[in-house]
Amino acid sequence: MTDRTPKTERGRRTMRRLLDAAAAEFGERGYHDAAITSITQRAGVALGSFYTYFEGKEALFRALVRDMSHAVRYHIAHELRGVTDRLTAERRGLEAYIGFVRRHKALYRIIEESQFVAEDVYREHYRVFIEAYRDGLRAASGRGEISEGQDEVRAWALVGMSVFLGMRYGVWGEDMSPAEVAEAAGALIAHGLAPRRGAA
Amino acid sequence: MTDRTPKTERGRRTMRRLLDAAAAEFGERGYHDAAITSITQRAGVALGSFYTYFEGKEALFRALVRDMSHAVRYHIAHELRGVTDRLTAERRGLEAYIGFVRRHKALYRIIEESQFVAEDVYREHYRVFIEAYRDGLRAASGRGEISEGQDEVRAWALVGMSVFLGMRYGVWGEDMSPAEVAEAAGALIAHGLAPRRGAA
Repeated sequence: MTDRTPKTERGRRTMRRLLDAAAAEFGERGYHDAAITSITQRAGVALGSFYTYFEGKEALFRALVRDMSHAVRYHIAHELRGVTDRLTAERRGLEAYIGFVRRHKALYRIIEESQFVAEDVYREHYRVFIEAYRDGLRAASGRGEISEGQDEVRAWALVGMSVFLGMRYGVWGEDMSPAEVAEAAGALIAHGLAPRRGAA
Repeated sequence: MTDRTPKTERGRRTMRRLLDAAAAEFGERGYHDAAITSITQRAGVALGSFYTYFEGKEALFRALVRDMSHAVRYHIAHELRGVTDRLTAERRGLEAYIGFVRRHKALYRIIEESQFVAEDVYREHYRVFIEAYRDGLRAASGRGEISEGQDEVRAWALVGMSVFLGMRYGVWGEDMSPAEVAEAAGALIAHGLAPRRGAA
């Protein structure tokens, strides 16, 4: 695959419009029914120009998954600026994630569908997420902010938790606020299910 | 949809063979490329007989998701017979789940694909799982075996954890045993990430 990263500011804006239009089109219609002509129309970009940016539908879809994956991580990192304590970061990160999902409901359909369209980018999405999570847990246990544990397993467990809470309280229903969900799950993440000492 | 549940033992065996063949076919080829003729061949069932059991491919797929959903829950419940303590049940249940996934690798592809083929059965699968989980947590906190908490949120969090650990250590790789994964995740489920009191 040739590198078609735009070199000019105008090119970057056009690519951004194509990715946003692709998110809407793939999110509404799914991969198989999505049409490049519909995406270029949504984006206000000529069909001929499209091919200077992407080789075709699959290349666009792959770029979109990577773009969304990056956007989620960037958003959470941005929301966590200045938070130094890991347990606070877990709760606030979850709140930021559920909020992001509510504003970008196409996210789940597209990430989930990627396992059938381009499984490598689906796996890459989670592997990148997990590696950063695992390293963050390791550093936090080194600083004594959290207990020691098997950080790869803990990272998968915590990411799975977030993905399912985002599906339930971000996409399927909004009967609890992101802060309420994060508060309830944050207690589980911090203290687990074991009865608290000193509790009745 | 008419009720086509077989009335005879022979009919039940034929339906079982069709469901097992469907799991293999849908698991290998995915919903769109799967063929009824290939499923009846795998099952050793005449094509004409197929339609006395299922209206068509989608009806078979829906029945298969419900069948797998039931099989997972049945297997875990069976493995947990005699376990009365909830924290032990969490760890042993996770171990049983990952073991089941390893022996039934088609499970993930089929459950995941159901969100695009028949989203209602996908949601039903998780709702049934979650309701049982939530009620189990509520009963256990009533008995004082676990802390009190928001049990619906905790159920979604714990199911998400299991699904992701099953994907990573059941389907993608077997570099840790189900018991090792359950031990590591069980510590997180029981005690959370907070530093243990009395630890250095």
